[in-house]
Amino acid sequence: MRRTVLFISDGTAITAETFGHSLLTQFSGHEFRQVRLPFVDTVEKAREAADLIDRAAEKDGPKPLVFSTIVDGDIGVALRESNAHVFDMFATFMPQLEEILGTAGSHSVGKAHGISDTHRYEDRMEATNYALAHDDGISTRLENADVILVGVSRSGKTPTCLYMALHFGLKAANYPLTEEDLEKPRLPDFLRKHKRKLYGLTIDAERLAEIRQTRRPDSRYASLKQCRYEVDAAESLLRSEGVSMLSSTRASVEELASRILLELGLDRDHF
Amino acid sequence: MRRTVLFISDGTAITAETFGHSLLTQFSGHEFRQVRLPFVDTVEKAREAADLIDRAAEKDGPKPLVFSTIVDGDIGVALRESNAHVFDMFATFMPQLEEILGTAGSHSVGKAHGISDTHRYEDRMEATNYALAHDDGISTRLENADVILVGVSRSGKTPTCLYMALHFGLKAANYPLTEEDLEKPRLPDFLRKHKRKLYGLTIDAERLAEIRQTRRPDSRYASLKQCRYEVDAAESLLRSEGVSMLSSTRASVEELASRILLELGLDRDHF
Repeated sequence: MRRTVLFISDGTAITAETFGHSLLTQFSGHEFRQVRLPFVDTVEKAREAADLIDRAAEKDGPKPLVFSTIVDGDIGVALRESNAHVFDMFATFMPQLEEILGTAGSHSVGKAHGISDTHRYEDRMEATNYALAHDDGISTRLENADVILVGVSRSGKTPTCLYMALHFGLKAANYPLTEEDLEKPRLPDFLRKHKRKLYGLTIDAERLAEIRQTRRPDSRYASLKQCRYEVDAAESLLRSEGVSMLSSTRASVEELASRILLELGLDRDHF
Repeated sequence: MRRTVLFISDGTAITAETFGHSLLTQFSGHEFRQVRLPFVDTVEKAREAADLIDRAAEKDGPKPLVFSTIVDGDIGVALRESNAHVFDMFATFMPQLEEILGTAGSHSVGKAHGISDTHRYEDRMEATNYALAHDDGISTRLENADVILVGVSRSGKTPTCLYMALHFGLKAANYPLTEEDLEKPRLPDFLRKHKRKLYGLTIDAERLAEIRQTRRPDSRYASLKQCRYEVDAAESLLRSEGVSMLSSTRASVEELASRILLELGLDRDHF
């Protein structure tokens, strides 16, 4: 039995989606058809959304679930007239928060993922440019880096750096350890001199071979033997240099990024 | 008067941060010191967090605000013993959701930003690799693209593509319109044949000149005259080809990405 779930907002619906998704991941064995409805910013659009919800309710049987972040009262009311269970983040928490802070919220639309905080937004864009210009060892001038990820090719460095830049506004560089690097007893000097910014990424050799196989099928690069050699050598090298490491085998880029920020002490007051 | 705000979770705290941040953006004129506390996944760590909160309360005067997403009951209890206003997403919504769905939630930690949905996670990583390999016109083989952004250099195409890839798992390519392209009456053929995937990004010439100025100071490339010429020519070209456009001048990558997904019909059932 399928149930429709809608993420509805007057802005991007990214908060609404994050909100609903985090709750739904706690329920397995249900079939959810998930629909995003961003930019529902007029009462008329809310009525259209309510019609869509009512049709889904009729078709599915079980009432749809709506996770919404609607700041405007009238839009919220129009939405709640639909045949759905509506969970609204603002309607639930704003009254209490207004009471605690002793002021009324602005109830203005589309703030959460806009560029109202221009400075912070520009930091994120600058960090994204930095990550691209310092990806994959392109540049070894790492003076301005907040963090430098080190690991063998395809261990997950690039997407983790891009996430750290886009989401947290951190200048994240990365350097792939080559076979030449792995034969030496120490890390290259341009890395050693930034040791407190270094963080290692490792990965199970089996998983690495799978990933490399899709990239260069049946190559020496993708062979399990080569992957085992590189992973073992990289882990030894990083351990001997006292560089902390995480494995990307079973961790998402979000988990890796959050953990690295926490351990390098980069996670506080960066807002 | 400063007030400490904490985003606390047993996982990455990304949901908790999104949750609290979206509510706080409704209140201006308050000074918030914001602290992320991810991976609070034992009662002991929750007690440490509670101590930190109590010390902040003593120092600040006003009680701290805590936005949390804690699935474990005992950890939540330990946290609520602190001297703070605690807003917990799970404690608030899970009981009602469990009743509606007729099953108990798993109350297992760190689901929201993990890789429990392996297939979707791999799509996102593959899309990120795709975006990098099809950034800035590197490749004109665009058969597999879900969306192709077109616009003048530095109009915001790259970060928007990276966001669409990392967040939505969409294969997003982008192509910068060169002066040579702008002198022609039509878009290049390798773009024209994918017209229904094309989306234009534009930007105010003044803002573009500012951005280019930081990149290549006092160049012809960064001059207001050149920026005006390029923006006008690009807008005419895209309009004459019937390609929709958005301006990145006052829109964030999140807003651009969400709007483009909606307009190209890419936003439904991609989960």
